[in-house]
Amino acid sequence: MCRSTAKAGEAEKQGRKSASTSHQTSSSRELIDTSPPRGTRDFDPQDMRLRSWLFGHWEVVSRQCGFEQVDFPVVENEELFVRKAGEEITSQLYNFEDKGQRRLALRPELTPSLARLVLKKAKSLPLPAKWWTIGQCWRYERMTRGRRREHYQWNCDIIGLEGVAAEAELLAAITLFFQRVGITPADVGIKVNSRKSLQAVLTQAGVPEDSFAAVCVVVDKIEKLPREKVLEELAGVGVADTAAEKIMAAMGTRSLDDLAQLLGSDNEAVSDLRRLFQLAEAYGMADWLAFDASVVRGLSYYTGIVFEGFDKQGVLRAICGGGRYDGLLGALGGENQPMCGFGFGDAVIMELLQDRGLLPDLGHEVDDLVLALDEDLRPQASGIAQQLRKKGRRVDLVLEGGRRMKWAFKHAERINAQQLVLVGQEEWAEGKVRVKNLGTREQEDMSVEALIHSLTLSKLTATAS
Amino acid sequence: MCRSTAKAGEAEKQGRKSASTSHQTSSSRELIDTSPPRGTRDFDPQDMRLRSWLFGHWEVVSRQCGFEQVDFPVVENEELFVRKAGEEITSQLYNFEDKGQRRLALRPELTPSLARLVLKKAKSLPLPAKWWTIGQCWRYERMTRGRRREHYQWNCDIIGLEGVAAEAELLAAITLFFQRVGITPADVGIKVNSRKSLQAVLTQAGVPEDSFAAVCVVVDKIEKLPREKVLEELAGVGVADTAAEKIMAAMGTRSLDDLAQLLGSDNEAVSDLRRLFQLAEAYGMADWLAFDASVVRGLSYYTGIVFEGFDKQGVLRAICGGGRYDGLLGALGGENQPMCGFGFGDAVIMELLQDRGLLPDLGHEVDDLVLALDEDLRPQASGIAQQLRKKGRRVDLVLEGGRRMKWAFKHAERINAQQLVLVGQEEWAEGKVRVKNLGTREQEDMSVEALIHSLTLSKLTATAS
Repeated sequence: MCRSTAKAGEAEKQGRKSASTSHQTSSSRELIDTSPPRGTRDFDPQDMRLRSWLFGHWEVVSRQCGFEQVDFPVVENEELFVRKAGEEITSQLYNFEDKGQRRLALRPELTPSLARLVLKKAKSLPLPAKWWTIGQCWRYERMTRGRRREHYQWNCDIIGLEGVAAEAELLAAITLFFQRVGITPADVGIKVNSRKSLQAVLTQAGVPEDSFAAVCVVVDKIEKLPREKVLEELAGVGVADTAAEKIMAAMGTRSLDDLAQLLGSDNEAVSDLRRLFQLAEAYGMADWLAFDASVVRGLSYYTGIVFEGFDKQGVLRAICGGGRYDGLLGALGGENQPMCGFGFGDAVIMELLQDRGLLPDLGHEVDDLVLALDEDLRPQASGIAQQLRKKGRRVDLVLEGGRRMKWAFKHAERINAQQLVLVGQEEWAEGKVRVKNLGTREQEDMSVEALIHSLTLSKLTATAS
Repeated sequence: MCRSTAKAGEAEKQGRKSASTSHQTSSSRELIDTSPPRGTRDFDPQDMRLRSWLFGHWEVVSRQCGFEQVDFPVVENEELFVRKAGEEITSQLYNFEDKGQRRLALRPELTPSLARLVLKKAKSLPLPAKWWTIGQCWRYERMTRGRRREHYQWNCDIIGLEGVAAEAELLAAITLFFQRVGITPADVGIKVNSRKSLQAVLTQAGVPEDSFAAVCVVVDKIEKLPREKVLEELAGVGVADTAAEKIMAAMGTRSLDDLAQLLGSDNEAVSDLRRLFQLAEAYGMADWLAFDASVVRGLSYYTGIVFEGFDKQGVLRAICGGGRYDGLLGALGGENQPMCGFGFGDAVIMELLQDRGLLPDLGHEVDDLVLALDEDLRPQASGIAQQLRKKGRRVDLVLEGGRRMKWAFKHAERINAQQLVLVGQEEWAEGKVRVKNLGTREQEDMSVEALIHSLTLSKLTATAS
């Protein structure tokens, strides 16, 4: 019927091992590329256990902080992400046209989707709302810096709240997470600033307010680009040399007191930051935070407090970042709401945890391994396995024939089973199975009823201890 | 700097509520489309709770049956999905070209990715392996039948096992899930067949073996297409009229005995099915299963046992489906392995659960609600909330100012909090907070230390009961 299956047919006629059960079968066809697309990952069981461990901590912390989970499609209309402020994120959009000539994009971040859902729910959403999500995000970038084209991101956002109590709550979630996984303020710090300080400088220097987002995107590159290049880009978004010098001065302030001196202590940036640090003390997380005037974050939509988690050894890229973005709904054509949130990627934190030896050693987990020592007893073994499962046990049933007891012990160890249930002719003739506790190495022959009953008992014991 | 932000700037000058905190701000820009792309879904907190409930059951069952979790990218190289057997799945591929001119596709199903990962791991994968995953799958189809363009799918697959013990284990997982969520064999059945019976008929009729996959894809449409159209399509894949009649006859057999009569009792389809039903008895799941010669499933790669879960009221589409696909690795250019698995979508099962009144009523869940009755006490309230969280409690802290006690009671009820912690001037002056148990309606003033201590105690009590 077609070239590839015809070839498969030919190969089949030449004879293969399991010809009787295969129809599309092995062929002279060239092996496909077994790697996932460039810049993307597979998660085999071992990788997946680590990912689930990380996501599990993110989930617990989100729930401990009273956030509700939401989710959005990984593909969105392209227009949702197209902003004009020269962000990296827009130039790296993973966009395409579908069969209906719609412009779509794999989301580069989660915040625009969240904003869209807030707009969709409009008045029906009780405010304030606290939402969390974990989602995969995509960026089409050159594969030079060891960066991938996809990563997972944990987001927490607070909708409908003015004032830094909201930002403090976001930082509380981040620091709770760090503590849960064993990271200390010696490993990681969080730099905190407010974009309102930049805004004050720009206003003093007579830079038009509508250049603000674009200026922030340029300022974010100060540490990466040569000074002339930054000045050139600032000129490109309408900032004259004298104003640029003032921006540099503000970015160079070393303390909140210096900033207050530069901008006046009634400046909003100063009072917001003072209040935030006061709350941080109360939360018991002040050790993690430090004012840093150079942090503005690279996204155009931030309007107030911005923050960034960083590796104190200075080796890794930013660990997480966030801030207040009170103007995003308006930029999407809706009515503004005060909003703030953070994004926390899976890549850098896993590197950090690996470096610090904080990743757990996780194996497959099973409670019982059930083995029929005789193929005739497979039905009995299957029934026992299913009964154990109905009691809530995680049960691996040996499905291949011909496995002996010695193999079963090794396999049980490999999958971390607690108990081995052997169904053999001799015991079964007496209505019993052999049960071996793999912790104590004790073994006992018992009826299936007694086995099930013993589980109920051991569960009670475990709960009480 | 650009049209949209310039407009935003203008709007800002006209004056808005929170002008001092916004910079991109509301604008005369038209509201974006707040719906997700056509055929896709958002999950607000309520939708998400139901989805997590469903996924949670899938996860528990997968672990109870000893499967290990894996995952793959939602975007794959297009070639992974391109098969030549006329499947619906290939014609509905959500494919596109990336900026590097690579042909990519949003995955329409999970099995090809799983097969790719098996090929990638090659000899390093200990067999047999049992893998499970939940992933979003995409199909670009006309939006006529109320079908969406994305859905989530639960997959369990067993790699490296010949013989129907593997298929029995898959069916055990599916029926365990049904039982967990309250579905009975009165609601749902699973039709079971083997493609080997069709193969025997085709061999008898002299149809070339390499037409097999394409024939199955056509035969799967028998109930949807008029007879002449089916005969025409069969002729198109090289099946003559007389052979077509035999296929129809085999598809019409009513029992395994009839099938044995038609094909001979030493036929592999017959012996596989008899063995599978024998194991199903032992698993205690025979009530769910029935032989049905008309089931072949629409995917080209199945080679042996195939099965399909269906709504016994005949209203809904297939609930789940799967089978043996021993030839898929070969079709991808690799060495074949015996493999079988199933896919179980989120859409139809949620409709069924809704229809049968089996969906739970899930609300936001919080343990403690903490409220500062005076804005000056916000730092103290924040500290208490964070301490409770460190003890493992889920704590919502009231972040907005000016909330009174009456509101707090209502809000606590809305978020299903167990306990309300009020931080008021009078109690705090004595070093205490007011703690109201929302179940018993009892209240008590206590120190923060006593509050934390009481939680540790109540945890012990709960565990022992």
